[in-house]
Amino acid sequence: MKKFVNDPKQYVPEMLKGIALANPDTLKYVPAYNLIMRSDSPSPDRVSIIQGSGSGHEPAHVMTVGRGMLDAACPGDVFSAPPMDYVYETTKLLASPKGVLLLVNNYTGDRMAFEMAQELSAADGVNVKTLFIDDDVAVQDSTYTVGRRGVAGNFFVMKAVGAAAEQGADLDELVRIGEKVDSVTRTMGIALTSCTPPAKGSPLFEIGDDEIEVGVGIHGEPGRRRAKLTTADEMTDELLDAVVNDLPYVAGDRVALMINGLGGTPISELYILYGHAHERLTELGITVGRSYVGEYCTSLDMAGASLTLVRLDDEIEALLEAPAEIAARIF
Amino acid sequence: MKKFVNDPKQYVPEMLKGIALANPDTLKYVPAYNLIMRSDSPSPDRVSIIQGSGSGHEPAHVMTVGRGMLDAACPGDVFSAPPMDYVYETTKLLASPKGVLLLVNNYTGDRMAFEMAQELSAADGVNVKTLFIDDDVAVQDSTYTVGRRGVAGNFFVMKAVGAAAEQGADLDELVRIGEKVDSVTRTMGIALTSCTPPAKGSPLFEIGDDEIEVGVGIHGEPGRRRAKLTTADEMTDELLDAVVNDLPYVAGDRVALMINGLGGTPISELYILYGHAHERLTELGITVGRSYVGEYCTSLDMAGASLTLVRLDDEIEALLEAPAEIAARIF
Repeated sequence: MKKFVNDPKQYVPEMLKGIALANPDTLKYVPAYNLIMRSDSPSPDRVSIIQGSGSGHEPAHVMTVGRGMLDAACPGDVFSAPPMDYVYETTKLLASPKGVLLLVNNYTGDRMAFEMAQELSAADGVNVKTLFIDDDVAVQDSTYTVGRRGVAGNFFVMKAVGAAAEQGADLDELVRIGEKVDSVTRTMGIALTSCTPPAKGSPLFEIGDDEIEVGVGIHGEPGRRRAKLTTADEMTDELLDAVVNDLPYVAGDRVALMINGLGGTPISELYILYGHAHERLTELGITVGRSYVGEYCTSLDMAGASLTLVRLDDEIEALLEAPAEIAARIF
Repeated sequence: MKKFVNDPKQYVPEMLKGIALANPDTLKYVPAYNLIMRSDSPSPDRVSIIQGSGSGHEPAHVMTVGRGMLDAACPGDVFSAPPMDYVYETTKLLASPKGVLLLVNNYTGDRMAFEMAQELSAADGVNVKTLFIDDDVAVQDSTYTVGRRGVAGNFFVMKAVGAAAEQGADLDELVRIGEKVDSVTRTMGIALTSCTPPAKGSPLFEIGDDEIEVGVGIHGEPGRRRAKLTTADEMTDELLDAVVNDLPYVAGDRVALMINGLGGTPISELYILYGHAHERLTELGITVGRSYVGEYCTSLDMAGASLTLVRLDDEIEALLEAPAEIAARIF
């Protein structure tokens, strides 16, 4: 294992400490519950938005906390759901009179932790609702999931509800917006390599030098098929066809197109995928209105990429355009 | 080789096409000279800033074109200097009555191309100056360099002169600012793995499963020593000590701290390095005023990282804070 790591058990806490040190004016790290939160949350004027998940998907979600996005992220260890009591304590800590929205990618372990935390917080009098994200079209049911998995498309749900919360929307309105964005968002990914969790120290799954996993999950779950490595264009076509035909997206639609790197793929390659996907969509009569190329939801050091489409309307596009400030940034 | 690639010869042009398609309102791709430029450049009110280099270092420099940064980037093939005539044509295309500033990382091939292009453009009546960046403290002279290499610290030079140009500074003023930023910027990197150029199809150099290259160059050039893989903290200490002692940075200084990923290292690991470096600087009485964690200047899919410090003063900090809009972004 060739990684920058000290004690694998301290991988997540050390990362969280780094995030807080790099953002001293805006973020706080609370070691007791392993959470990153906005320094100015909870606000009486704003619903608090919390997302949790296993770690290893950064920048999701500990680096997407900040104005116009999450109020807090509540990470578990690498590829493990956060402990229920940490989610509960985070919910109490962030409780706003306007309420709390919990965002959860659809994995059984995460659902359990968040559903129990919601129940306990509600019993304490917190106005809390939960929204599940399930944008991955690759498979129905999976190693850790009943139904579809939540993957990189969660970025658009976070961004939209985060912008609406900042503008003062109430909890029911945020649930409406989040469900709407999830309902028009679809993703599929391809892995070129496996990934290595720090505590395991060896690759999570085996894959041949000439093989790819089409429809891979972000924890290395199997996808639709194991295939032979082929050209960038052919791999893009397979992702795009699966995503387009699922909703389906049709001629006349205006979409956001995201090419998300899974952690080990350089951004130069992501732009090659992006260019071909953009041209194919244009041929289909689908207009790319907004573009996202980079790392949004990764799988440690996995080489690979996912393609996400979001069908835009004026409401969604305005929320995606709204300003936001998070740890994951260039400047 | 497991990459998203079609024809390796089209790797750079296909990437550039993708960048332009993702930024239709702000950027143009000019295939004839393999360049990415701002759609609104040249402007009579602004010195044009051009940076060229080999490709494979993205987001540098083709994804750092835009308002407040570069007017154009003029890339060569992967790890190859841009052809002199392309630099010359780019300079002519971007010629503003206020002049043209060429930014060049200090590699012999790049220097040759840019110095000849400057000479030819000047003969055509273009007011053009060139600024060399040489922030890498690892070694004096190297495989492709006389003197020190230019690496991730070039981001700060681009950002500062880009902001000043946007505010209307003249060419001499930009040269003064760029030289000043370069003079207070120092970087060193560590490679955990090699990298694979698409046209070569195999790793650029050999490195053992338990080895690291301390002071590696961004084209895989040897650094100070081949060492055994150790902890994240020990590797951070080695980078930090080399950088701090070079300028030197001393108690009372205020700095920008950048942890730059070399392409294959997940951002979670970069924050582990960042946290330790920040704490060590605090112990030394050096204040971290601005933080940069992510990919700025990469080496294809190399696992590794570099650490950069910039000594801040009010002028530099204001230029680093100024707004900018480039392809490399989250939103």
